[in-house]
Amino acid sequence: MARVMPAFWHEGHAGSRARIIPDEVAVAFTYNQSTHAVMMASPADLEDLAVGFSLNEAIVEHPGQIEEIRAVVLEDGIDLRIRLDADRAAGLIERRRHVAGPSGCGLCGIDSLAGAMRPPKTVGEGLRLTPDQVLVALDALGPHQIWGRESRAMHAAGWWHPDRGMALVREDVGRHNALDKLAGALVLGGLPAAEGVAVITSRVSIEMVQKVAMAGITVMIAVSAPTALAIRTAEAAGITLVAVARADGFEVFTGVRRIAGLDQS
Amino acid sequence: MARVMPAFWHEGHAGSRARIIPDEVAVAFTYNQSTHAVMMASPADLEDLAVGFSLNEAIVEHPGQIEEIRAVVLEDGIDLRIRLDADRAAGLIERRRHVAGPSGCGLCGIDSLAGAMRPPKTVGEGLRLTPDQVLVALDALGPHQIWGRESRAMHAAGWWHPDRGMALVREDVGRHNALDKLAGALVLGGLPAAEGVAVITSRVSIEMVQKVAMAGITVMIAVSAPTALAIRTAEAAGITLVAVARADGFEVFTGVRRIAGLDQS
Repeated sequence: MARVMPAFWHEGHAGSRARIIPDEVAVAFTYNQSTHAVMMASPADLEDLAVGFSLNEAIVEHPGQIEEIRAVVLEDGIDLRIRLDADRAAGLIERRRHVAGPSGCGLCGIDSLAGAMRPPKTVGEGLRLTPDQVLVALDALGPHQIWGRESRAMHAAGWWHPDRGMALVREDVGRHNALDKLAGALVLGGLPAAEGVAVITSRVSIEMVQKVAMAGITVMIAVSAPTALAIRTAEAAGITLVAVARADGFEVFTGVRRIAGLDQS
Repeated sequence: MARVMPAFWHEGHAGSRARIIPDEVAVAFTYNQSTHAVMMASPADLEDLAVGFSLNEAIVEHPGQIEEIRAVVLEDGIDLRIRLDADRAAGLIERRRHVAGPSGCGLCGIDSLAGAMRPPKTVGEGLRLTPDQVLVALDALGPHQIWGRESRAMHAAGWWHPDRGMALVREDVGRHNALDKLAGALVLGGLPAAEGVAVITSRVSIEMVQKVAMAGITVMIAVSAPTALAIRTAEAAGITLVAVARADGFEVFTGVRRIAGLDQS
């Protein structure tokens, strides 16, 4: 987080004021010395990010396949150096060879689209909530948005449990990263993901649903609205998708059976 | 856009109501039969997206290097088949070979980070605005958010000109795509990008600034806040970054000389 002094103009008056703004750095995901992806992220909870991203992209099946994670600070950003065990490393090289394909193969578009649209993991039966519990879970996120409250420019993803409350929250300038970090932290903390709810501050695109499905979480609550594709994917995954959630109400787009009192309506 | 009927719960009452939600499809960018990237986007203005993305990613220097654009609808999404002229096609193959590198080169993280953090294009002197013009430009975006108004789940990027008003607006579920589409539409429409202002509905991350710089636009106005890296990049590009813009005021993070009356404060 950084403190800046922008000029401001407000109803005819000019001046300057202090503002807290979030950091953002380029993070490279380098597996066994070969870079897989680069993205912009908040430079915190990088081990969670490494584990969550690796799981959500199906680069590993469980964190035991990761032998070491080192975050190396370079001039242009952070190189997350992740060492996979021999089996997974070989698998990743094979997959990269396949994705890169022969130049001009003509099937690349079809293959790449199929990869992006792979059927989501389906989740178990999971929990059932009352409408009040949905509002309690949503309300519990705010106090944990340490950075978001100061900067009003970050996303958060939290894991709420009926008995434990908001047990984990991760923040990031990117909504995808916040959810990857949450997934990593859940696994590293040995928490029973399927027994809790994912609460996110953002819109719901297909990738957000895919990540929730990969974590085995059965109910997700989002502040903003879903896309049509996100709804279809949540349906296919068996996830209860609650969205447009505010302090006084919410909408349920899929899996309404898990919300008591709404399954009749 | 699709119409769905989610269940709702509001202050103790349950029911169901109609809601308009945005479409989202996987779009593959396939250059001369080899896929470069896949992203989720709103399936509209695809020619603008193809041209804007190709320019912003420096795959082409001008649209004349694109010989043909075809949007092919496949089962899993849309394959945007872009045929480059022979020179640019050879350049892209060379670049891909370099990026892929030999497996385990050890330099990949450094190279990839440098690519993501490449210095932005610097913009010219461009225009100078009064605070009232900033508010007029911001206010002019709303009426053009045709889809955003219905779904309240889409981003918009507009180009406002002091004499022409809000001459171009593009919308997308992704804020990056909205700006890529705007850049493409500006070039295809032969509009003088540098004489206008980019108005965006979203937060300002580094990529948003990089895209505005590539378009040669000197002033950007954003509804939400910037990251620290976005501010540094706007400074380096010579862009005036106005953010946290509301109906009654705004903040200026860089290039305050272009906003009359604030350059003294």
